[in-house]
Amino acid sequence: MSRPIILGIVGDSAAGKTTLTRGIAQVLGPENVTLICTDDYHRYDRTQRAEIGITALHPDCNYLDIMQQHLSLLRTGQPILKPVYSHKTGTFEPPQYIKPNKFVIIEGLLGYSTRAARDAYDVKVYLAPPEPVRAAWKIKRDTQKRGYTPEQVLAELEKREPDSEQYIRPQRQWSDIVVSFYPTKEEENETNGHLNVRLVLRPSIPHPDFTQITDSGNGDSQSAVRLGLDRDMGKPVDVLEVDGHATLEQVTNIEHIMCSDMPYLKNICDREINPELGKIAGTTGETLQSYPLALTQLIITYHMLKATQIYQ
Amino acid sequence: MSRPIILGIVGDSAAGKTTLTRGIAQVLGPENVTLICTDDYHRYDRTQRAEIGITALHPDCNYLDIMQQHLSLLRTGQPILKPVYSHKTGTFEPPQYIKPNKFVIIEGLLGYSTRAARDAYDVKVYLAPPEPVRAAWKIKRDTQKRGYTPEQVLAELEKREPDSEQYIRPQRQWSDIVVSFYPTKEEENETNGHLNVRLVLRPSIPHPDFTQITDSGNGDSQSAVRLGLDRDMGKPVDVLEVDGHATLEQVTNIEHIMCSDMPYLKNICDREINPELGKIAGTTGETLQSYPLALTQLIITYHMLKATQIYQ
Repeated sequence: MSRPIILGIVGDSAAGKTTLTRGIAQVLGPENVTLICTDDYHRYDRTQRAEIGITALHPDCNYLDIMQQHLSLLRTGQPILKPVYSHKTGTFEPPQYIKPNKFVIIEGLLGYSTRAARDAYDVKVYLAPPEPVRAAWKIKRDTQKRGYTPEQVLAELEKREPDSEQYIRPQRQWSDIVVSFYPTKEEENETNGHLNVRLVLRPSIPHPDFTQITDSGNGDSQSAVRLGLDRDMGKPVDVLEVDGHATLEQVTNIEHIMCSDMPYLKNICDREINPELGKIAGTTGETLQSYPLALTQLIITYHMLKATQIYQ
Repeated sequence: MSRPIILGIVGDSAAGKTTLTRGIAQVLGPENVTLICTDDYHRYDRTQRAEIGITALHPDCNYLDIMQQHLSLLRTGQPILKPVYSHKTGTFEPPQYIKPNKFVIIEGLLGYSTRAARDAYDVKVYLAPPEPVRAAWKIKRDTQKRGYTPEQVLAELEKREPDSEQYIRPQRQWSDIVVSFYPTKEEENETNGHLNVRLVLRPSIPHPDFTQITDSGNGDSQSAVRLGLDRDMGKPVDVLEVDGHATLEQVTNIEHIMCSDMPYLKNICDREINPELGKIAGTTGETLQSYPLALTQLIITYHMLKATQIYQ
């Protein structure tokens, strides 16, 4: 029996969850994808949170048991009646009937916080940009889209820090892939197009065999594409780094490694078929092409497609 | 493992569902009971229903698959995040977190309309007052509590009749007990305290052995308490009738039959311990004592308690 393949995108506020989620939905085909944001499972609206003095990051501020129940239902292909929280008004709207498509992407703050929730995902991604980058992203978004001043956003970040430390960041340990976009030292004010990416590949799911990168001599410390062993939260992992100035040739090389294992991915890698791959809005709204983002989207897509082969 | 015992109270609009539900909750102890009204599973709010031209009685106007899913979850003791429809405003409110108590009473229009929903109940009651009585009750309630005129209520009844016929009344066949309160011919304008009751006891659950009523000579056609065989929707059933003017002695006799099988019910029958038994608000708000209502509450309670013995 066929069941949906479920991807988790977890990370702190303004870590880039929605941007990555939309990019992957674009690659998989929006008509095949159901998008769910776990902020909808807030227990209190904005006014109640202020009264109680609780942040949205705190487990007690969310119906985590219901979130987990809905994840389990979606995993077996059942519909759910999802609550709806509006970030615009800070209140709840009528619930929404959701029948899962072939792929389900769950993005949110606390998606990996319970065992049963974690068991529902096929692929678990954690977003961990450096904190200064996240602060810059949060200021940009919350001033432009949610009507806050930069000072309010910074105060909010400070208020939330203890909960981020205690409840959000520990979830990194449960992820299969940790994604960190970061600027080079020379471009610390650059927040988008030319960011590098550091991908932690935990051996909790079978990643493509990237050791060829090292073998070909292209993966040394001077190269724009590097593979190396490291520890993440104390456990051994592979780390794949791709710089923003990597060449199309270097990027194509990595894509071939993934495609050899997964012929169907070839179409997705083809930039003529998939002009959206790695596209991102620049600081002034212009569209930029980011190879690090393209490769991040591709490796996640690789695992989503792989899961359809295993389970269906 | 302990699980909640689930009672269904199904019937058409203003058939007396809420009155019966509250009475039974009172007998079981309100702290032990979770009350759920399936109107909360409406798909459209009042404005949308008017625009589409659909009545709340139509299956397509309700998330019946979600209702059924929530029933199944409650049956295994799991919490649900229940949608909330306000009859006062005709709109949806923030959903409500519900962890089931020892007893769950589900009242509504379409509670038995799907197989999986029906499978969730331990005891299924269907309310079937004569249509003129229901019309009188609906006019009374909707003019007093929902701001309609009598003419509007009658027009609404007429508009809903095809859906009542097609979707509501056929559910009678799935019930274990059909409850019909009805006036005597001489008191056709009497809508509350002195109503008689006709209880159809379908052999789908094990009822107390009421044949003693017939054996004792108290059950003949002249008595205020009568038991007889009949067919209901084509199938053989027992019919227990209790008149509004039955004496305390006659009523106590029936209570003893139930208690012999279920000693714990004795406390519940005791009017000193349970002064609320059979109490009902009269037409001008005064409290009346109805033996037919008391016996109806007791036989349903009998089955709820019986179910705890069987399953727990």
